[in-house]
Amino acid sequence: MKTENLKKQIEFIKEIDKIKYIQRKTKLFNSDRHENDAEHSWHLAMMTLVLAEHANEPIDILKVLKMLLIHDVVEIDAGDTFLFDKNQEHDNRVEESEAAQRIFGLLPKEQATEFIQIWEEFEAAETPEAKFANAMDNFEPMLQNASNQGGTWAEFDVPYDTVIEKKKKIGDGSKTVWKYAKDLVDDCVEQGILKK
Amino acid sequence: MKTENLKKQIEFIKEIDKIKYIQRKTKLFNSDRHENDAEHSWHLAMMTLVLAEHANEPIDILKVLKMLLIHDVVEIDAGDTFLFDKNQEHDNRVEESEAAQRIFGLLPKEQATEFIQIWEEFEAAETPEAKFANAMDNFEPMLQNASNQGGTWAEFDVPYDTVIEKKKKIGDGSKTVWKYAKDLVDDCVEQGILKK
Repeated sequence: MKTENLKKQIEFIKEIDKIKYIQRKTKLFNSDRHENDAEHSWHLAMMTLVLAEHANEPIDILKVLKMLLIHDVVEIDAGDTFLFDKNQEHDNRVEESEAAQRIFGLLPKEQATEFIQIWEEFEAAETPEAKFANAMDNFEPMLQNASNQGGTWAEFDVPYDTVIEKKKKIGDGSKTVWKYAKDLVDDCVEQGILKK
Repeated sequence: MKTENLKKQIEFIKEIDKIKYIQRKTKLFNSDRHENDAEHSWHLAMMTLVLAEHANEPIDILKVLKMLLIHDVVEIDAGDTFLFDKNQEHDNRVEESEAAQRIFGLLPKEQATEFIQIWEEFEAAETPEAKFANAMDNFEPMLQNASNQGGTWAEFDVPYDTVIEKKKKIGDGSKTVWKYAKDLVDDCVEQGILKK
């Protein structure tokens, strides 16, 4: 049983290596180099370890870490979605759901079920853990954009109101982090790297 | 207090972005592209989530995740050490210890103390969590090398006995994983990609 499990787990470990090739629109801090999904997921996990005290509600940190470590694995099949995509208000839900079934389905059944549930909980953004995890996912690219002369906001001509509208849900996970993020956006306007 | 903490935490979050530029000797699975420390740390955290059941002793998974997420942060200052380095039996301990003080020291005091302790516990490799975390850290490049026609073993002419000698401590964390890893090494000899 243990050996059977291990074989499946190793297949999963090999498969998820592909996440390292998935490029995000955002770039590393003070950099021209695009971030990939593995780097992004690691950074969000680290942010959780240091920022958990600012969560609005008590959170199970291990669960948040699980959410953030696995949240982009579905992009191996479904590709990266860009928050400020103007062409389509797509959320890739069907493709991502199929990807979750296929990729987490490589694991032993009990684990596959757990991972799919955790991923769905993250996507639904309703529990304290999912709200905080989503806050981290939304906050990191703001810090990167601010360090990169507006980053994707400038590149894709995203106006102030849209940034605020799309990002304000950070406050559902942490009012403290949202206050910081909102001030950061206001600073960017003052610096002339974001249009009001 | 919360705002003071947040400022320090954001400085830390920005600083650790540098780990994404630290290249390891090993390469991604079936690939010519070197892995960086952020990708590596993410992968070890994922391996922990799926392989924890194979630990020799009960482990606190959250603690193992903390260890693996932060274990290479010190390389921002101290650089990557290569397990099979022939020129010096260096372990960079002094440089890494100074790096831990500087980088984790960016955090609020209580957090800095916790992170330094966790990093030291990982390095000492004595507790069940540290043994398992070190097993993951040693196992991932073996899977990568096996997928890359011997990878660093071939590139740096590392013989079978040295691989076994350096890697057998995986068994301190998980006998099951070490059995798999040992079989993998034997397979590599049969395939002619590792010299006995």
